[in-house]
Amino acid sequence: MAGFDLLVLAPVGSITALLFAAYLAFSIMKKDQGNDRMKEIALAVRTGAKAYLKRQYLGVSIFFAVVFCVLLFLALKGYLVIFVPFAFLTGGLFSGLSGFIGMSIATQASNRTAAGAMKSLNSGLRVAFSSGAVMGLTVVGLGLLDLSIWYYFLDWYYSTHAIPVGTDKITAITSTMLCFGMGASSQALFARVGGGIFTKAADVGADLVGKVEAGIPEDDPRNPAVIADNVGDNVGDVAGMGADLYESYVGSIVATSALGVAASLGSGIDGVKFVTVPMVMAAVGVVASIIGTFFVKSREEASQKVLLAALRKGVFSSSLLVAIISFPLVIYTLGMSYIGVYYSVLAGLFAGVLIGLVTEYYTSSGFPPTRSIADSATTGPATVIISGLAVGMMSTALPVIIVCLAILASYFLSGGANNFNAGLYGVAISAVGMLSTLGITLATDAYGPVADNAGGNAEMSHLPPEVRKRTDALDALGNTTAATGKGFAIGSAALTALALIAAYRDQLVLSGKELKLNLLEPTLLVGLFLGGMLPFLFCSMTMRAVGRAAGKIVVEVRRQFKEIKGLMEGKAKPDYARCVTIATAAAQKEMIMPSLLAITAPIAVGLLVGIEAVAGLLTGATVTGFVLAIMMANSGGAWDNAKKYIEEGNHGGKGSPAHKAAVSGDTVGDPFKDTSGPSLNILIKLMSMVSIVFASFIMAHTLVK
Amino acid sequence: MAGFDLLVLAPVGSITALLFAAYLAFSIMKKDQGNDRMKEIALAVRTGAKAYLKRQYLGVSIFFAVVFCVLLFLALKGYLVIFVPFAFLTGGLFSGLSGFIGMSIATQASNRTAAGAMKSLNSGLRVAFSSGAVMGLTVVGLGLLDLSIWYYFLDWYYSTHAIPVGTDKITAITSTMLCFGMGASSQALFARVGGGIFTKAADVGADLVGKVEAGIPEDDPRNPAVIADNVGDNVGDVAGMGADLYESYVGSIVATSALGVAASLGSGIDGVKFVTVPMVMAAVGVVASIIGTFFVKSREEASQKVLLAALRKGVFSSSLLVAIISFPLVIYTLGMSYIGVYYSVLAGLFAGVLIGLVTEYYTSSGFPPTRSIADSATTGPATVIISGLAVGMMSTALPVIIVCLAILASYFLSGGANNFNAGLYGVAISAVGMLSTLGITLATDAYGPVADNAGGNAEMSHLPPEVRKRTDALDALGNTTAATGKGFAIGSAALTALALIAAYRDQLVLSGKELKLNLLEPTLLVGLFLGGMLPFLFCSMTMRAVGRAAGKIVVEVRRQFKEIKGLMEGKAKPDYARCVTIATAAAQKEMIMPSLLAITAPIAVGLLVGIEAVAGLLTGATVTGFVLAIMMANSGGAWDNAKKYIEEGNHGGKGSPAHKAAVSGDTVGDPFKDTSGPSLNILIKLMSMVSIVFASFIMAHTLVK
Repeated sequence: MAGFDLLVLAPVGSITALLFAAYLAFSIMKKDQGNDRMKEIALAVRTGAKAYLKRQYLGVSIFFAVVFCVLLFLALKGYLVIFVPFAFLTGGLFSGLSGFIGMSIATQASNRTAAGAMKSLNSGLRVAFSSGAVMGLTVVGLGLLDLSIWYYFLDWYYSTHAIPVGTDKITAITSTMLCFGMGASSQALFARVGGGIFTKAADVGADLVGKVEAGIPEDDPRNPAVIADNVGDNVGDVAGMGADLYESYVGSIVATSALGVAASLGSGIDGVKFVTVPMVMAAVGVVASIIGTFFVKSREEASQKVLLAALRKGVFSSSLLVAIISFPLVIYTLGMSYIGVYYSVLAGLFAGVLIGLVTEYYTSSGFPPTRSIADSATTGPATVIISGLAVGMMSTALPVIIVCLAILASYFLSGGANNFNAGLYGVAISAVGMLSTLGITLATDAYGPVADNAGGNAEMSHLPPEVRKRTDALDALGNTTAATGKGFAIGSAALTALALIAAYRDQLVLSGKELKLNLLEPTLLVGLFLGGMLPFLFCSMTMRAVGRAAGKIVVEVRRQFKEIKGLMEGKAKPDYARCVTIATAAAQKEMIMPSLLAITAPIAVGLLVGIEAVAGLLTGATVTGFVLAIMMANSGGAWDNAKKYIEEGNHGGKGSPAHKAAVSGDTVGDPFKDTSGPSLNILIKLMSMVSIVFASFIMAHTLVK
Repeated sequence: MAGFDLLVLAPVGSITALLFAAYLAFSIMKKDQGNDRMKEIALAVRTGAKAYLKRQYLGVSIFFAVVFCVLLFLALKGYLVIFVPFAFLTGGLFSGLSGFIGMSIATQASNRTAAGAMKSLNSGLRVAFSSGAVMGLTVVGLGLLDLSIWYYFLDWYYSTHAIPVGTDKITAITSTMLCFGMGASSQALFARVGGGIFTKAADVGADLVGKVEAGIPEDDPRNPAVIADNVGDNVGDVAGMGADLYESYVGSIVATSALGVAASLGSGIDGVKFVTVPMVMAAVGVVASIIGTFFVKSREEASQKVLLAALRKGVFSSSLLVAIISFPLVIYTLGMSYIGVYYSVLAGLFAGVLIGLVTEYYTSSGFPPTRSIADSATTGPATVIISGLAVGMMSTALPVIIVCLAILASYFLSGGANNFNAGLYGVAISAVGMLSTLGITLATDAYGPVADNAGGNAEMSHLPPEVRKRTDALDALGNTTAATGKGFAIGSAALTALALIAAYRDQLVLSGKELKLNLLEPTLLVGLFLGGMLPFLFCSMTMRAVGRAAGKIVVEVRRQFKEIKGLMEGKAKPDYARCVTIATAAAQKEMIMPSLLAITAPIAVGLLVGIEAVAGLLTGATVTGFVLAIMMANSGGAWDNAKKYIEEGNHGGKGSPAHKAAVSGDTVGDPFKDTSGPSLNILIKLMSMVSIVFASFIMAHTLVK
């Protein structure tokens, strides 16, 4: 047993995840699709979503081709290992594939969920949750696959070929793998920003003309933008989120591996062992997640509380399993003297759960903060906005404190007081711990848009009201799990970003440059200021992009209402596809500038202000981005649920002045929580990745040496 | 000439400023007070404002007494020099006095401005501007006085008594003077937060019931909260701002002096010379400001553009004068080899002017950003909010870049590449350069509320419409100069905060502890995260405070409308004083928690996470606070001016749906720009001051050593 190479569990875990995902996918496909009308609507959404992704991947391909050439050029010039350009491609490919597969199954599951809900709440829940689980397991499966392939390939290559001068095999492997995160992050940013702009432009556009001007209900089939709205849920909340979390997942593992090698120096333990722990822990998480999915089921006609408890049971049991199995894993791999690494894992797992609970407190209408927003709706939109912003700002305190405690605990418990690198490894592995149960946490998150679409399908297919009531119950739950999922994504992003900044420093050390990271060094301070400002600039750009894109949808919907005779009477069909095309084109155009900002900022700052400034930039962006992302996600979630709380009949219910004011809050919250906020996670990690990949180049050409 | 001690110019400058302020004050008092009704209203506002300040100073006295005892205890225990508790008191006293004098003259000037405006626009402008100048010169005069007294006293004391062990005379002087900033900062925070809550609670309360529910116009004498609203302008925008900028002014000078002593080590130049430069430059600024005031005059019935040009002429000519006179000052004091210090001064002056111009671009309705907010008002309140937030976020980029350039320029030009301390001295002195013309920039800023009150006075006294038109022209201009002034205050705060953080490090070095300020040190990172979150938490607390206090005003106004018979018909008088009392009590209560947060946070973090974490906390708070303060000030200013732009007849004008939407934006902007945003400047500096004062204590008792 002592000689058994645990690392082989990584590909095994990967295959297991993908096989189980395939099994779930087939079982979903066998479910009842509902009547013809339901199938027809689902087909329209599916077609639109695929058309969007096709267009998106086309644009992204051009970007990847250009960056590939740049990286190839840098590699040929000796600034990069030759594998980096190819690793960049596979990272992007697998990240995109995660989103694509998740979205394909989600668009198949929506009408089947509606059909399930015709039978019972539990049948609906099972279909929607299975669809989320396919997505979650695909993400972790493909992530582990990409990691395993590269690890074994590089291991073989450097065993049979020359290792780059001044390094050893495992360092050569991990520093190359680190760079492939840039591909995943780029893909994720495009998916989140593009998808986020699409979904909110369609949503706001459909609402402004349909609900407000024409006075027809939500999801009414006469609204030309209704299909685009449903497509948006899939391309933004499913495909975007899939790519996003794929990036988080592999990012945390490669950063941890790279730091592990640094930590191994002088420890007397082979660096491979430090790489084995995060990879195998991910595999353990796969199994734990699969087992967790079996705990998710509900009695018939359960309350929302019971449904939430069902999902929780799945997540908590997975977390518990990881907590148990990690113990022998760490002991077997690193030995008792590194037991602190296990405590770091626990710190990460525990922090993730806590952040989820805090998020729920601030965004669920069962608690005072969201209630206070609903109360303030009685005095008009201005007070709704002020109280929503105040709640969002207030809600940043506890997650920040929790992450700070996780940092301190994981650093000091894994021996940071004596060995700086071991401590940083501890911080990094706490992020892996937090993300290890991604297979199931992502399932609870990704099931939301499916339930949402199922509701739309039920509405447009004129199914009986009790079906819509069931899908609404599933959807409302989705709001809570989505907010929880976002808190989780943000928390892990902060930890991963720190690990990446440390990896950036190590990358420069490998290139023979010791960074002077003195906080009062003015170039570093300037970097901090610029980094602190960037998330604000980025949010401004994405929010304005949503506004412009929504404006185009508004014009088109008005045109169709005016020009298509008999549309309002239900005698003629609107041109759904045109709205999808317009939203697609607008999203594609608008995602370019913010994405370029993320990629060029670290290179520009590095060349103009120096490599220390880059460290400052990354840290400043991580700090502000983390806080701003929590604020935006929680304000948005709280506004949404405050509106829903009023719709349940409080403060005058639907149609009251309070409701109108709450709708304004929700509209402001839409780009907050679904476009700008979640993109910030990726922004900070992508900037770190870019800095790492371009480190040698910047070092050679910076004006400030 | 060579032996002449330039430092004597500091008290001379101080006396000059105070004498000229007194001369201006007397000339204002001699102006026509208008008719009896005008006098009566002015008296009511004055009485209310004095009552507020009396109550505020009572509360603050208790706070000062407690902290004085704490400091005395620490001094007796040997953690502090014995003078610090007393310096703390004088700092608070002079800061409060600045606000009190400025407010006293402002409440005397409002009816006189209205009376002047009955004659001509220029007469009104002269009175209002003179009142602002009294405030500006009082602030700089008292600041220099406080500095001079302490300098000469400590110089005498340490010449005749023993100097603390391990230091020299000038170090002993500057490190003591540094601590008196804490008194000024504490007073400033209370004044800004308390005044800010008062003014916005009264404003929002008066509007919600008066304008919205009862349908009576702004400033209508039947509204019971109308006097409280006018009082608010004085206690918030005048007294609060006076205390705020007093703190900025002395803070930048004492921080620069302390860093100057560090820079002098090994330079072969007496440390006194490095202290002389900022002190004398302040005196030069006094003279330049006085000369500048003579350039401010206008032709009769000039356009807003011409009026703005008149104010600009005053500020620019003062800046030019400082730029010219500083050259011989630096050469004479430090010699040609320190010419770089002069360039640092220029960098600060220039950055201040640039930030002002950028602020104007983003907040004036003459430019696209504010116009775009007005455009978005046609689609309702939600789009107004989104576009206003987007403009505010976007507007952070240029000021941050300008400050970054100023940091780099002043650091490297004053020799930072070879001597770290000389570079930091350069950064600090750029803040002094930026603030040197405070006498006149504050005059252009403080004149706004006077013009605003004059408008209220004219309205309530039923003066002819052309008078109100003239006061409106003055008021509109005040919005632009207020926004510019805020940008200026924020920019200088960022530079000063950096200087204070450096001074914190030096203070610890004096206590025999070298700080390890490695950016990746986890305790420092944790400090950064906590510091980055604090401004959000602080804003949340102050925004909620405004909401709660406004709610109390609403209840009271409703009660008076209901219970006082004949009020709406104009036959009975409302109980103005009660609204003032309620707003006062609410503001006093609500200002406690945010202020305590600012004071306790650095001590708590220092004790629990260590002295490195404090450096991180201060840096994180400076970065986020700076960006957030710009965003809030500019969003608020832009919303206000977008509303005014619509009121001028665009997008349907007053009463249109667009106007209603724009009013929502303005209401959200009120606490942004007048309560939370401007308090952030003080927050970051007060935290730095607290850290400096408590440095030795924290070092001795921290859990993390």
